[in-house]
Amino acid sequence: MSDLLGVAVLGAGHMGADHVRRLDRVVSGARVAAVADPDTGRAAEAVAGIDDVSVHAEAAAALDAPGVEAVLIASPGPAHEEALLEAFARGLPVLCEKPLVPESAGALRVMEAEVRLGRRLAQVGFMRRYDAEYLRLKSLLDGGRLGRPLMLHCTHRNVSSPPDFTSAMLVNSSVSHEIDAARWLLGQELTAVTVLRPRSSSSAPEGLIDPQFVLFETAGGALVDVEVFVNCGFGYQVACEAVCEAGSARIGDERSLAVTTVDGRHEEVARDYLVRFADAYDREVQAWVDATRAGRVTGPGVWDGYAASAVAEAGVRALESGGRVAVELVPRPDLYA
Amino acid sequence: MSDLLGVAVLGAGHMGADHVRRLDRVVSGARVAAVADPDTGRAAEAVAGIDDVSVHAEAAAALDAPGVEAVLIASPGPAHEEALLEAFARGLPVLCEKPLVPESAGALRVMEAEVRLGRRLAQVGFMRRYDAEYLRLKSLLDGGRLGRPLMLHCTHRNVSSPPDFTSAMLVNSSVSHEIDAARWLLGQELTAVTVLRPRSSSSAPEGLIDPQFVLFETAGGALVDVEVFVNCGFGYQVACEAVCEAGSARIGDERSLAVTTVDGRHEEVARDYLVRFADAYDREVQAWVDATRAGRVTGPGVWDGYAASAVAEAGVRALESGGRVAVELVPRPDLYA
Amino acid sequence: MSDLLGVAVLGAGHMGADHVRRLDRVVSGARVAAVADPDTGRAAEAVAGIDDVSVHAEAAAALDAPGVEAVLIASPGPAHEEALLEAFARGLPVLCEKPLVPESAGALRVMEAEVRLGRRLAQVGFMRRYDAEYLRLKSLLDGGRLGRPLMLHCTHRNVSSPPDFTSAMLVNSSVSHEIDAARWLLGQELTAVTVLRPRSSSSAPEGLIDPQFVLFETAGGALVDVEVFVNCGFGYQVACEAVCEAGSARIGDERSLAVTTVDGRHEEVARDYLVRFADAYDREVQAWVDATRAGRVTGPGVWDGYAASAVAEAGVRALESGGRVAVELVPRPDLYA
Amino acid sequence: MSDLLGVAVLGAGHMGADHVRRLDRVVSGARVAAVADPDTGRAAEAVAGIDDVSVHAEAAAALDAPGVEAVLIASPGPAHEEALLEAFARGLPVLCEKPLVPESAGALRVMEAEVRLGRRLAQVGFMRRYDAEYLRLKSLLDGGRLGRPLMLHCTHRNVSSPPDFTSAMLVNSSVSHEIDAARWLLGQELTAVTVLRPRSSSSAPEGLIDPQFVLFETAGGALVDVEVFVNCGFGYQVACEAVCEAGSARIGDERSLAVTTVDGRHEEVARDYLVRFADAYDREVQAWVDATRAGRVTGPGVWDGYAASAVAEAGVRALESGGRVAVELVPRPDLYA
Repeated sequence: MSDLLGVAVLGAGHMGADHVRRLDRVVSGARVAAVADPDTGRAAEAVAGIDDVSVHAEAAAALDAPGVEAVLIASPGPAHEEALLEAFARGLPVLCEKPLVPESAGALRVMEAEVRLGRRLAQVGFMRRYDAEYLRLKSLLDGGRLGRPLMLHCTHRNVSSPPDFTSAMLVNSSVSHEIDAARWLLGQELTAVTVLRPRSSSSAPEGLIDPQFVLFETAGGALVDVEVFVNCGFGYQVACEAVCEAGSARIGDERSLAVTTVDGRHEEVARDYLVRFADAYDREVQAWVDATRAGRVTGPGVWDGYAASAVAEAGVRALESGGRVAVELVPRPDLYA
Repeated sequence: MSDLLGVAVLGAGHMGADHVRRLDRVVSGARVAAVADPDTGRAAEAVAGIDDVSVHAEAAAALDAPGVEAVLIASPGPAHEEALLEAFARGLPVLCEKPLVPESAGALRVMEAEVRLGRRLAQVGFMRRYDAEYLRLKSLLDGGRLGRPLMLHCTHRNVSSPPDFTSAMLVNSSVSHEIDAARWLLGQELTAVTVLRPRSSSSAPEGLIDPQFVLFETAGGALVDVEVFVNCGFGYQVACEAVCEAGSARIGDERSLAVTTVDGRHEEVARDYLVRFADAYDREVQAWVDATRAGRVTGPGVWDGYAASAVAEAGVRALESGGRVAVELVPRPDLYA
Repeated sequence: MSDLLGVAVLGAGHMGADHVRRLDRVVSGARVAAVADPDTGRAAEAVAGIDDVSVHAEAAAALDAPGVEAVLIASPGPAHEEALLEAFARGLPVLCEKPLVPESAGALRVMEAEVRLGRRLAQVGFMRRYDAEYLRLKSLLDGGRLGRPLMLHCTHRNVSSPPDFTSAMLVNSSVSHEIDAARWLLGQELTAVTVLRPRSSSSAPEGLIDPQFVLFETAGGALVDVEVFVNCGFGYQVACEAVCEAGSARIGDERSLAVTTVDGRHEEVARDYLVRFADAYDREVQAWVDATRAGRVTGPGVWDGYAASAVAEAGVRALESGGRVAVELVPRPDLYA
Repeated sequence: MSDLLGVAVLGAGHMGADHVRRLDRVVSGARVAAVADPDTGRAAEAVAGIDDVSVHAEAAAALDAPGVEAVLIASPGPAHEEALLEAFARGLPVLCEKPLVPESAGALRVMEAEVRLGRRLAQVGFMRRYDAEYLRLKSLLDGGRLGRPLMLHCTHRNVSSPPDFTSAMLVNSSVSHEIDAARWLLGQELTAVTVLRPRSSSSAPEGLIDPQFVLFETAGGALVDVEVFVNCGFGYQVACEAVCEAGSARIGDERSLAVTTVDGRHEEVARDYLVRFADAYDREVQAWVDATRAGRVTGPGVWDGYAASAVAEAGVRALESGGRVAVELVPRPDLYA
């Protein structure tokens, strides 16, 4: 397996540059063949020191560049739909950062295109499915030892939100991870959503509804609650407790170095998702490279990206209305059976 | 301080007998002077081996027995109102097991009686206020280091429910502890309640809605969620996480003995509230005896008992209706300011 | 059981005054009948507000005071031997704070006196045997589920040592608790001791050898190691891990309130043995009162006090010599079989 | 960076085959160019499916194979010295699995050869230096916040020992990891060693002295104790607590998935070092590949391998003699300053 998969990376921002580094220096079996960003200076900087890579302003040009065999989309969400369709048009396998497409209508168009193609090409970047703790939880739930899951209690906290973060983005950007994780862990679609608003923290920017408490119902009658708090100030914390008929299981309290001083016993809390989920990103991209070289798609696909968008849209309506909003999904195409 | 406070214990069931034992053998400064139970055989058995104690079928007779200076009510809830009024009529200090009175209307009558009396005589048995962990959490929240509380995430799990336990009792019996704990920890009244119903566990008796997920709103805009699951099968677990503007704090994961075997690292979980809260009961009764001998009432009082009943009643209506139910309280009398 | 056991408390220092408070206000079934201290002002202060108690300068006078039925010795170690012999002469049951007698020769004389008496009267204040965690560990080891114990790893840390604390006192005062705990947990005598000296902490007073690392061998071939560090600065920590043939068990990492702030996850560490072992002291004295009222001696006795002194003496010689020192015990009298 | 480092892997046993897989499929920037094993069938199997790789019976032939630019030695310890000298003769960078050379005399010859060469070529496979927890502990100790380290308490437990494991191998194979970790964490040489023998577990094979308790003294006056127990039966546990002048720090209790069932709260314990240290191996080899491609040696070197061998030899003598054995090291050559 020594010829390397040539990957075009679309987008050279924070996440795109990190994926370039990962493909070049961490992951086995791949190389960066092209990079595209409207800011070509930033694109060139991201690939400095890498041989045989071309730099482009346009995504389509990067897809056509020599040596490109697969695409990693890390451009802003609004550019995803076009990039995905371009990749499909060329038959190129894709790893697309989440969200697949910001609106479910666009996600639906992408799904229709892939269905027309008749084979799966795209994987969505829900990297929690590659996190060691989530994988252990999934394996435990699937093993059946704890019986049927009844509730998931989830926590999603960030130190602070980026500028221009809106109240809707707590649901459709932050909680979108829990939306996918809940669907995947439970193997059930989410059918309704309600968003509660405790008094906002004085640390949240003026006008931002933060924290929020989001409640999902599932097709199998489980309840999923998510505390999302993006200006909690104290750390990046992602935890999940599954309460089942015969036991409960909890992840997200990882303890590695315990320091005891005159101030008591103390354990660090990660401050950033790139720290907390660094290994998950590495594993995700390695798994995608391995599957792509083997001609397969094994990760979360377009259906998952579509469902996450549809649930997030219902969530935003629930936030606005204060009531319960049902989730409507199109029938699941056979391609994603 | 060597003359002992003579206490009449009303009710000689599981809880009453335990309080007899506690007053006789654990707590300093008190003695059991009388016991009453319609089943006088059971009453006599509870005080076997104790000197100078009289046994009665009727509560009123016990209150009039020689040496009785205070009353501990551990009879069934429906008997509480009359017993409280009898004690008030005699000017006897009372420790009344929760609920103060099952219906808020009755609680209101007891409150009116105490207000007419013009001084406080009754304490309600919300023993969590005497649990070491809750006390540390309360002290932390009051100290202000974590800023204003925004959410309380609570868990209340029992191994299995007693026979005849109803869906309403998850709210008005089990969750009543969280109702008081939330009011006390936050120093705020609860203003509305919603009850969600995930699919019931197959371990729950036919027809019992279990688990339930109960959401309270507070006068200060905080949100309190409670998972109550009384047939969880795996242990008695009471946990509470307070999420505040500048940090979070969690109790209920006590770890004392960690055993590692071929099956992994393992820690016991208490199976019974009399085990988990044994120290809290001891401390509660000791504090009540000490305060009573000093002529004071220091614990949760009739207002707290009334408020808990009113919230629980709203909760049961919320369970039945599936919607949000506001809590209506009468104005707080000055006696409880 | 309503007549109270009248106790004479010898010594009204820190520990004596705490026991007076405990007998008066915490423990059921006892009262303070007399108190003795050369500083009678301090003695009077300790019993202020207590009825029917006499204050004495001399221990013997307190033992003869009206109402005295039992003795709690909390005077300095050098006074213990005489006080024990005086109590034995009067047939009074005794709870004697550790050490039973500072030198094993004196302990031997006390043991001979009790053997001559032909019945056990004295209990030694090794209160760890009454700590909930130690009790659970003892029960686990006795249950046999983990197989034969091979090693005990112990930690004994204090924030700082009192003035005039000597290097020998790390062994014969601090580690004496581990000496008794190891004998009790394993059910084996300690047969040899070696003391290692890592470089002393710069926080330790000039000339104090602190920390020390003490190694005990047992009659059953187990190894007990104790880190004793009395100027660790960061807390009062007592931990013990038992490593057995089929598993290990660890106590001393109790976690009750976990606080997460911008500085990470944080748990308090007790700073004082009166905090960490408050419940154990309460339980110890309650158990002694209960047993005494029932005419029995159930706790650690004179043999245990003697053995602890003999091991501690060997430990001090090991500290001085740098080598391994064997422990020599007299044959165990039948009274302690 | 897209031309891959061609690596010859010597040895195709358990560890060698795992390194082949790692170089081929996990690590970025390297490829397996040659493999050597006296059992050429096993060597061929290890590289099945990999292009452009040659298979050899002799190590020297593999070093001369086309495309070989660096060497990873995973053959049995006795073959290391010759393989290292052959690699040095060709100027090839080497990653040599521990032990560098089983006897310190051989390690000294390798060191002399590298010193003659005048530049460092070899790294030794002490992979704990690449484990995330050890790295955090190292960083904490180096940062100085906890003050000077006084003691390291280490635990090294295996489920069971391989056939033919000898009592000496507990020291010179198992504990060799702690020897290197202690030297690295403290930045001090080990100066003396004592080995204590608690009664052996009945689970240990007849004649094997297991567990052992190994005590090291360091040049800076610190004490390092290691419980090594290779037939503990219950898991692979590697823990380390550093006790310093201003606090303590502990690693090795990693908790990720906590499962609560009717049997209590439960956390898995790794059963195998390839599981516990999988990430460390990946990081070690990636770091070596990166440094080698950049023309540098950054990891533990020949001096570290020599010192570990010398300490282990003293440890084996201490095990045999029952006494304290001083460690003698040659002066440290400038090359390793």
